[in-house]
Amino acid sequence: MHLASYTVGGHDSYGIVTADGIIDARRRLGPEFATLRAVLAAEWIDALAAFAAASPDYAIEQVAFLPVIPDPSKILCVGINYQAHIRETKREPPQHPWLFVRFANTLVGHGQPLLRPKVSTKYDFEGELAVVIGRRARYVPAAQALTHVAGYSCFNDGTIRDWQIHSPLFTAGKNFHRSGALGPVLATADAIPDPARLHLQTRLNGQVMQQSGIDDLCFDVPALIAYCSTFAQLEPGDIIATGTPGGAGAFRDPRVWLCPGDVVEVEISGIGVLRNPVADE
Amino acid sequence: MHLASYTVGGHDSYGIVTADGIIDARRRLGPEFATLRAVLAAEWIDALAAFAAASPDYAIEQVAFLPVIPDPSKILCVGINYQAHIRETKREPPQHPWLFVRFANTLVGHGQPLLRPKVSTKYDFEGELAVVIGRRARYVPAAQALTHVAGYSCFNDGTIRDWQIHSPLFTAGKNFHRSGALGPVLATADAIPDPARLHLQTRLNGQVMQQSGIDDLCFDVPALIAYCSTFAQLEPGDIIATGTPGGAGAFRDPRVWLCPGDVVEVEISGIGVLRNPVADE
Repeated sequence: MHLASYTVGGHDSYGIVTADGIIDARRRLGPEFATLRAVLAAEWIDALAAFAAASPDYAIEQVAFLPVIPDPSKILCVGINYQAHIRETKREPPQHPWLFVRFANTLVGHGQPLLRPKVSTKYDFEGELAVVIGRRARYVPAAQALTHVAGYSCFNDGTIRDWQIHSPLFTAGKNFHRSGALGPVLATADAIPDPARLHLQTRLNGQVMQQSGIDDLCFDVPALIAYCSTFAQLEPGDIIATGTPGGAGAFRDPRVWLCPGDVVEVEISGIGVLRNPVADE
Repeated sequence: MHLASYTVGGHDSYGIVTADGIIDARRRLGPEFATLRAVLAAEWIDALAAFAAASPDYAIEQVAFLPVIPDPSKILCVGINYQAHIRETKREPPQHPWLFVRFANTLVGHGQPLLRPKVSTKYDFEGELAVVIGRRARYVPAAQALTHVAGYSCFNDGTIRDWQIHSPLFTAGKNFHRSGALGPVLATADAIPDPARLHLQTRLNGQVMQQSGIDDLCFDVPALIAYCSTFAQLEPGDIIATGTPGGAGAFRDPRVWLCPGDVVEVEISGIGVLRNPVADE
């Protein structure tokens, strides 16, 4: 199943995305389940399948997509995790995952404009695979880690490069308001038994800028969940963004920065295309 | 006013802390205001003053304190921000604030045990002043910054030192489950016109380990709000933990690590004492 969160008619909702349109799940499940995160927390994802044969309630064009999980309690992001990106950044392979955090309001949904802030022109894209946690996880060994995954989504870890290096900790440049994106859908894990077999491509105005198999990850999805769950208690709806492959704008010659009017697409096999225009704030 | 969030009789609530006990505000304000964060978001803090003369509903011993804001959308923490701490870490004074993030479920309330995790014995304390945002802030100049502050609290930025240096980004060692604390109260900003005049002391089992005026901050409270609001849209209830002075356990000779049975106190003038025992997970 492909699930999405969206706004329609002034109300936030979520549902099942099919080729014919969107089947609204919120009104079928009732007021206890206000968000997709609440559905995950109740382990009711499988119950949604009962609605999958219903007639669509909305055409895809009728809804404004929100980030797949609009209200996660954690968004953990992994730095320098693809072999090709490690080489282009001229860093040593990390001994442990490099983790930073994004706040939920730094992300927009599919189709919404990514905002270039007033204070910088060094705005860059980073296409990534995002893991959405489905079951609470603490001290989970890698061999059991995938049983805690609800599904996968596309992520654009939009970065203000000059602010990223204000300190060694990355935080400021990774947390500009509405500078990243998550979506369009949560592809449930039942259809993706091994995320390492997925393939990612990032395009800028139609031109391929990044492409990689997810099998080029330095720390793979099970290893990341094992590591993160050793310190954090991961909760349903939490996001782990797994890092970006080679080819982001800052590491190209000449460098490429996002400008108003650009369109960035992050496509992952089996999930879909996260497409966002760029606008000035 | 001194405000607190707490659990009593199995329900989460919040109220006014006085010398005679706690005046419950949640049941007086009604169901629209489920949390102190919701009161801040509605700019209803001043309305709480109407209840301040009521008879207390609970003795302080009757409630279990929660983190002052149990559900902030952001907890931004500042590293190496006191001159004395910069010297003891042998680092250069930073050009910009060093920011990292903590997740809400890494914090406990006043009186609750801080958890030493299974995977490390290098557990350290860091006493800090926490700023609680009261009004949405974006691109706020330093001169106006304090008008966006709801109040102040005490913070223990409990750190697993060996995991902090797993990567240069600090994240893992700063985000162990229930390893830090926030409280006991939110001292409203009306009584603290200038946070630089406050004084902080951290005690371990009654012995003074850290003490400093807040005026030793490298980036002061207005500068931090101005900087953070340039990238982030700060929301009511967001927390900025302003950094720790000299004297944390890792920088002492011999080093001092927190052990089960220890008691850590962070006291700030005009706010109170945040006291937590340490327990093994």
